[in-house]
Amino acid sequence: MADKLLNKIDEKKNPCVVGLDPVVEKIPPYLLKGDSFADIAEAFREFNFTIIDSVQDLVPCVKPQIAFYEKYGSAGLAAFKDTVDYAHSKGLIVIEDGKRGDISHTVQAYAEGHLGVVKTRSTTQPSLNVDLLTVNPYLGSDGLTPFVNVCKEQEKGLFILAKTSNPGSGELQDRMIDLTPSEQKELASIGIKLNNGRTTLYNLVALRIRNYAKECIGSRGYSQIGAVVGASFSSQAEELRKIMPESIFLVPGYGAQGGTAKELVNCFNNDGYGAVVNSSRGIIYAYEKLGTPNKFAQAARKATEEMIKDIISALKEKIYHD
Amino acid sequence: MADKLLNKIDEKKNPCVVGLDPVVEKIPPYLLKGDSFADIAEAFREFNFTIIDSVQDLVPCVKPQIAFYEKYGSAGLAAFKDTVDYAHSKGLIVIEDGKRGDISHTVQAYAEGHLGVVKTRSTTQPSLNVDLLTVNPYLGSDGLTPFVNVCKEQEKGLFILAKTSNPGSGELQDRMIDLTPSEQKELASIGIKLNNGRTTLYNLVALRIRNYAKECIGSRGYSQIGAVVGASFSSQAEELRKIMPESIFLVPGYGAQGGTAKELVNCFNNDGYGAVVNSSRGIIYAYEKLGTPNKFAQAARKATEEMIKDIISALKEKIYHD
Repeated sequence: MADKLLNKIDEKKNPCVVGLDPVVEKIPPYLLKGDSFADIAEAFREFNFTIIDSVQDLVPCVKPQIAFYEKYGSAGLAAFKDTVDYAHSKGLIVIEDGKRGDISHTVQAYAEGHLGVVKTRSTTQPSLNVDLLTVNPYLGSDGLTPFVNVCKEQEKGLFILAKTSNPGSGELQDRMIDLTPSEQKELASIGIKLNNGRTTLYNLVALRIRNYAKECIGSRGYSQIGAVVGASFSSQAEELRKIMPESIFLVPGYGAQGGTAKELVNCFNNDGYGAVVNSSRGIIYAYEKLGTPNKFAQAARKATEEMIKDIISALKEKIYHD
Repeated sequence: MADKLLNKIDEKKNPCVVGLDPVVEKIPPYLLKGDSFADIAEAFREFNFTIIDSVQDLVPCVKPQIAFYEKYGSAGLAAFKDTVDYAHSKGLIVIEDGKRGDISHTVQAYAEGHLGVVKTRSTTQPSLNVDLLTVNPYLGSDGLTPFVNVCKEQEKGLFILAKTSNPGSGELQDRMIDLTPSEQKELASIGIKLNNGRTTLYNLVALRIRNYAKECIGSRGYSQIGAVVGASFSSQAEELRKIMPESIFLVPGYGAQGGTAKELVNCFNNDGYGAVVNSSRGIIYAYEKLGTPNKFAQAARKATEEMIKDIISALKEKIYHD
């Protein structure tokens, strides 16, 4: 999956991701034909398909946030699945933002349902069939290993939450924590400065991701096990890049969430790879600034082009500068 | 919601929860009529409805684990929703095990879709409409507050993950972490012994839950904001009980996961309330030990009766002993 993602980034010449987060209040009103959940699902389909048509030649990936779909129950989840399939039919890689996390049989069910194949009475077949999924590390390795195993079997990928981009992300993630002697040694050997043998919780999570990532590195040097790293924390990104050199970072928070291209370039390696950058509302609702609701697709395309230009220019500066 | 839950526990005279985790490989084969996801969803419906019929007079709550349903896409999610509605029609309280967690607009979407009401073009109406939901704290308070607010508005409830029951739960949750001076003061005043001004990550999460819980305490002294506390860690449960006296604990891990009644009584307060105890596989697949697949409902009832007896006897001993 890492090779596939890097090849797609090369093909499109940028690492930008369009987030597909449809909400009733913001999609153009003429798309909504009625009040049933099926009507809403149909409007989401039309909205997403039009956005995908409009940006499919520009970007390597789309990222639907499943919360906005399952909100409308089975009708919404059907629109999610149709969006995944439509994006695939246009050659796009699909990152599901689901932040799933559980243990044992349950995490196995999430892994099979979202990334892998599921059993019926006498067959196995894909279900939601996304390419990469965001997952939550709070439950420990028995919450992550089944995801990693399904990714290896099915050539899929993960972005494990390390450091998120929200204002409250530091409340737990930034706490200084105790390390075992072997963790201390490992982090020190990477060049991470410890504080009385301790570091932040997110650095420990990153160390876990590092070790998962090393188990499955593709031919281009990157792993299918990546990390979510918030764009708003540039110095932290630099350290996380060191701990997880082979992981691709999913960087949320560009645009609407306040992250700038300059801040997030530290999420990339000096080879210009190593991260994908997402913008959702800044692109799909660009019509609010750039035009009228019935021109939402053109506005999305324009906003995507601007984002690509901004990211590429910051990346060039970084690579030149370094 | 806390009052409603306690009243239901009084009505049924026990705090036991039947987990509804249907899997293709374990439900009686004759329920599966074909290989489509719709066939599987239909089998899950029949399986769940039969289990619910069989235990509805015994227990206050059921707990469907949504991973096992969304695994089969929109067809599976429809079976989930029908299970929620059927359980409600039998007077049961429904706890969704979803371990959702995100930030901002996204967490708002989860809260509205699972617990609250959602907007259509011109109405607001419930969607999945569960009574209580498990949620993940890793993203900080901006990941939890929207859930809490929807619970207050809609009289619903949460179980926030504090200390889970899996073997790897300690990898992050048990780490000793730094506290702010005010957190130190708060924990010390509760009687929690600190280690050089520090405590475990799960105790800090518990302190957060405590403060959410205090915002919304029902007339019977308990809050609609509860916690997930794994049954396998009895001494930790005692400490967590102190930090979160008003929170109801959802205790997984009884039965199939190895927790015993004796270990988990520390999750209760001395008034005999303060926790609900879940068993999933030990009940719904009890036919594997107690009978044949076509007697799965009778076996589930028998296993539920045994669980109730076991929990009540341990609870009586605790209350008598204390």
